[in-house]
Amino acid sequence: MDKLQNPCCIGLDTRISFVPSFIKQQAVEKEDNVFEATAEAILEFNRKIVDATYDLVPCYKINSAFYELYGKHGIKALKKTVEHVKKRDRIVILDVKRNDIGSTAEAYANAYLGRVELCDGTKASSYFDADAITVNPYLGTDGIKPFLDACGNFGKGIFVLVKTSNPSSHEFQDVKMDNDSSTLFQMVARKVDEWGAELIGTEYGYSSVGMVVGATYPEQAKVCRKLVPRAVVLVPGYGAQGAKAKDVVHNFNEDGLGAIIHSARGVIAAYRSEKYEAGEDRFEEAARQAALEMIDDIISALKASGKCRW
Amino acid sequence: MDKLQNPCCIGLDTRISFVPSFIKQQAVEKEDNVFEATAEAILEFNRKIVDATYDLVPCYKINSAFYELYGKHGIKALKKTVEHVKKRDRIVILDVKRNDIGSTAEAYANAYLGRVELCDGTKASSYFDADAITVNPYLGTDGIKPFLDACGNFGKGIFVLVKTSNPSSHEFQDVKMDNDSSTLFQMVARKVDEWGAELIGTEYGYSSVGMVVGATYPEQAKVCRKLVPRAVVLVPGYGAQGAKAKDVVHNFNEDGLGAIIHSARGVIAAYRSEKYEAGEDRFEEAARQAALEMIDDIISALKASGKCRW
Repeated sequence: MDKLQNPCCIGLDTRISFVPSFIKQQAVEKEDNVFEATAEAILEFNRKIVDATYDLVPCYKINSAFYELYGKHGIKALKKTVEHVKKRDRIVILDVKRNDIGSTAEAYANAYLGRVELCDGTKASSYFDADAITVNPYLGTDGIKPFLDACGNFGKGIFVLVKTSNPSSHEFQDVKMDNDSSTLFQMVARKVDEWGAELIGTEYGYSSVGMVVGATYPEQAKVCRKLVPRAVVLVPGYGAQGAKAKDVVHNFNEDGLGAIIHSARGVIAAYRSEKYEAGEDRFEEAARQAALEMIDDIISALKASGKCRW
Repeated sequence: MDKLQNPCCIGLDTRISFVPSFIKQQAVEKEDNVFEATAEAILEFNRKIVDATYDLVPCYKINSAFYELYGKHGIKALKKTVEHVKKRDRIVILDVKRNDIGSTAEAYANAYLGRVELCDGTKASSYFDADAITVNPYLGTDGIKPFLDACGNFGKGIFVLVKTSNPSSHEFQDVKMDNDSSTLFQMVARKVDEWGAELIGTEYGYSSVGMVVGATYPEQAKVCRKLVPRAVVLVPGYGAQGAKAKDVVHNFNEDGLGAIIHSARGVIAAYRSEKYEAGEDRFEEAARQAALEMIDDIISALKASGKCRW
């Protein structure tokens, strides 16, 4: 973030409907299997988006759902997208929202962040080898512990879902608990602080254990920021989901750090918006323009709040 | 269940350490890529376990974590394991514990249960096409809705995590909420009832929306059973996790239905236990023996409770 002077993250949540026809056409001509062609088209689109924007943003987030749709072909495209982002020396967050009981959570931690045991007795790097993943806290500490181990052993990060950006997130997350009148999301936030206590970086003082707090809920964001000062907040909801730049500033600390602002559709599918008046053949240009405008918007709001360090 | 006269489910949570050496050896000789060889070995093991047990049990559950470890090769083995179970005319539950905001949850629903949009404009059946999957409720109704649609449109099922079997599950799930002094897991259970209300089967009166309730918590199981009479309970925790047959009877209704009892390691890795004194070459026989004993154990407990219909 300091190098590129902004906290923005582009989401490669690539639905096939976002991919220009000429890329789909090329993929169909090249591959016999339509699942494979679809995954190839998404990968090609991602590579072009990354190449058009990586000099601007420090980070990309990839939501696994849009790749799992195409089975083994989608998983290959996901891995190759991760590789491409890493080749461009940018941070890659896999948004997988995984969760399970301890022994199975360990398999997930190894799949995405750790090392894998193979049938010839050797161990290999994780197939995906992301820098960080998202995890769901519903199962409690023993479902999180293997991910903490991966953070410590392999220099990785996790983002725990605390207050999600969707309309129904209040149903469980905002209900008050009778132990101390705090809500479920506050209780989870306190656990995030506890889980990350042994994983604080020496340079900036932030933990490997971050949290997801939707930009669509600025009041809850203020509460979370106070409860877990050392967590990096991954903030979805800006742009297409309706949150504004002024809503996301509450996720930052006074040092101007501590939050990553994410936008997917608003950037990667910008060419489809009337605002950019770009044809399919100019999708990279529109994405770049949208990324630049997002950065400007976030930096202006940070400056207005007195929290900008850049 | 009525056909095979038991409610047991075998978990194909196949760690590579469970696979006999001779299968691993064959896979290494056949495949150059060790990730692919590992996935092939797991698939071969699964096929043999299924073939040795499918005349006994109505259902198999597969935990995706142990396949995601091997990337695209693991996903291929997962799909082929699903296909093999379906070829044997048994129900297959994919234990993926997926969750996300509505638009992304829709992609997960399509990936595992629904239909997939491809780059040539056609739609295809889901790559995995499982009978049911597990889902995490933390995001609330809009993260569940797309899965309900898949249940209705494609005759599928989901199992919502309510009270999980792991030691830390009390941390959030058992905390009392101050609205009505019920716990979080009770609140989620009530939502399960609501989510399933429009998806009740005509033959047995059960809903397509089931719930996961760990056998390790019999008291909570009684509460859940009362709260959601029409849900099928997927019950992990029997066997290797320590729960006994007498603990699982609380998950059944008076009609002797309403629960699926799951065991993975206790069956598929039975050959490694001292009890069976079976060498690697007799792993299928040991698994079959363990399955038969599990069925006996559960049926005896059901008979003792007066709830057995078989």
